[in-house]
Amino acid sequence: MLTTLCLACCMGATAQIVYHDASALPLLGKATEATRERYVRLPDSLQHQVRKELTDLGQNSAGLALRFRTNSTCIKARWTVRNNFGMAHMTAVGVKGLDLYGLVDGEWRFAGSGFPKGKQSESTLVKNMTPEAREFMLYLPLYDGATQIEIGIDSLSTLELPQVELPRTGKPLVFYGTSILQGGCANRPGMAHTNILSRRLQRECINLGFSGNARLDLEVARVMAATDASLYVLDFLPNVTLEQMRERTDAFYSLLREAHPDVPILFVENPPFPHALFNQEVAREIAEENAWLRNYVKQLRRKGDKQVSLFTSEQMIGTDREATVDGCHFTDLGFTRYAEQLLPVLKKLLAK
Amino acid sequence: MLTTLCLACCMGATAQIVYHDASALPLLGKATEATRERYVRLPDSLQHQVRKELTDLGQNSAGLALRFRTNSTCIKARWTVRNNFGMAHMTAVGVKGLDLYGLVDGEWRFAGSGFPKGKQSESTLVKNMTPEAREFMLYLPLYDGATQIEIGIDSLSTLELPQVELPRTGKPLVFYGTSILQGGCANRPGMAHTNILSRRLQRECINLGFSGNARLDLEVARVMAATDASLYVLDFLPNVTLEQMRERTDAFYSLLREAHPDVPILFVENPPFPHALFNQEVAREIAEENAWLRNYVKQLRRKGDKQVSLFTSEQMIGTDREATVDGCHFTDLGFTRYAEQLLPVLKKLLAK
Repeated sequence: MLTTLCLACCMGATAQIVYHDASALPLLGKATEATRERYVRLPDSLQHQVRKELTDLGQNSAGLALRFRTNSTCIKARWTVRNNFGMAHMTAVGVKGLDLYGLVDGEWRFAGSGFPKGKQSESTLVKNMTPEAREFMLYLPLYDGATQIEIGIDSLSTLELPQVELPRTGKPLVFYGTSILQGGCANRPGMAHTNILSRRLQRECINLGFSGNARLDLEVARVMAATDASLYVLDFLPNVTLEQMRERTDAFYSLLREAHPDVPILFVENPPFPHALFNQEVAREIAEENAWLRNYVKQLRRKGDKQVSLFTSEQMIGTDREATVDGCHFTDLGFTRYAEQLLPVLKKLLAK
Repeated sequence: MLTTLCLACCMGATAQIVYHDASALPLLGKATEATRERYVRLPDSLQHQVRKELTDLGQNSAGLALRFRTNSTCIKARWTVRNNFGMAHMTAVGVKGLDLYGLVDGEWRFAGSGFPKGKQSESTLVKNMTPEAREFMLYLPLYDGATQIEIGIDSLSTLELPQVELPRTGKPLVFYGTSILQGGCANRPGMAHTNILSRRLQRECINLGFSGNARLDLEVARVMAATDASLYVLDFLPNVTLEQMRERTDAFYSLLREAHPDVPILFVENPPFPHALFNQEVAREIAEENAWLRNYVKQLRRKGDKQVSLFTSEQMIGTDREATVDGCHFTDLGFTRYAEQLLPVLKKLLAK
């Protein structure tokens, strides 16, 4: 459907880098187009309607990715972020950097990451390539918001719209969840598990992960219900208490189910947090919440919803207890394992 | 061999935290005791003898770990680092944080990480444990140097010397290498691959990784030759040019071999840097250096050294090209895969 549009085709005597604003390039991973700014995840209408934490986190660009095609031998980026945010347990590349993949023989392959320097950054993503046209995907910051992005290419090369639609095939998968879903603590943006899954499934994945704030807000359920989704994944347990789950889960579920009677909904158990081997309090909470969720999903199925299912978490991130940075947030090891466990489950649900 | 020594046994009415300096606790991972300061890796005598970069990096505490035993329900740490260093592509926890493992049924299990706040930090590593005596191992910062470490326990509990020697069984393995070996870019100190291997082998591993500076300095070979090692792993290729390899490899190897005629020496190829799929220059360098090394090791074996071998890198970090943060430095995914590939090779060499 996309037509090939030559956005830039400058001729020059030497291979200088020329920057082009990315705003005309296709953007993947948005739940809504009702935003004045481009690289945000929640509609502007939610401002002052929901908790400030949610609208702030909605301005983080987790799960968003730009698509383009170029024959440049070098790709650079210049970008500005909203907050210049930082965390001790996550790399700056993951928080506010960029991550470039190229399409090789039909598979997305890592090409290079963009190192942030502060609010404004410039970084070489990849260089020394042969000058042939390739498809690229550029993942945006996970825990900060990009406000402007420019892509730099050789002055003699072209920056074009993609010629293939990958990974945007069919309807998107929509994920709702916590800091972990938002990508905490992937080493680079492409390693948040929704981004890994998008590459592996060749499907668009929409990331509605809100660090510390997946508290079953019904306003978010309405945004999700308004998307034309192929599948909903609800992965919120670490952010809610047992009481909050009891109070709000059914209303959240019902908003999705009423709008989409036949779309699969997958509930996800608490991760097997590694430090629960030592921390008895964490072990108790995990067990209680998982037991409640198992029973809730069983009840839904008994009431006749055959499109609702449960992802049990025992094998979610392996069994060596090594896959987190702090007992809670996944590293690239955790995200890779989680994606590999989810992949066959999602494929099966999508094939229904 | 270690005797149980009650370093602290305070009685009090409430469970307050009491801090104890860690300087009396056993320290693993040092190549030399000839240092005035405790948490450093190279002997003081090298100062002004070698390049400043090397002595500076020698003050990073990569691969060092404290051992202790406590029945505290909570373990905290207070620590000071030398440089308050930071990098965009590595977490602060990995660079200058701490990482605690507990021994459960004979296996080292992640218990909690220490989040740095600056030059001086205080962090809760684990809490809500049952009050029973356990063995712990605390990994020190990878890319900064700890200058002081205190361990905080419940005032009613005891901090003791370990009762088991694990992972210090037999002679240590000694690793020489680059930023990757030093732990760039593990998410937390325990995930540098020498630390993973130490836990899996239940052997002490000495980390002589020097970021950007594994240039076959003979002074470092002399430090290594002075250790009573069970195995040497030489993993320096990414830091040397082909010319430097030709000039210095044999002298470096000879210093080790003359001091230890029968100790296995394992040379390691360049990692299969993922971005080499795009960057032709990197692809060319990897291939050239690996070819030279393969031939060099073949020559050594032809000359009669049957205790020298080569680790080929094709499967080193998997084949999905996802295991680095920047095309070069390993994430926890890369380090885990590397350790899993090295493990059977090292076991075989140690069994010889």
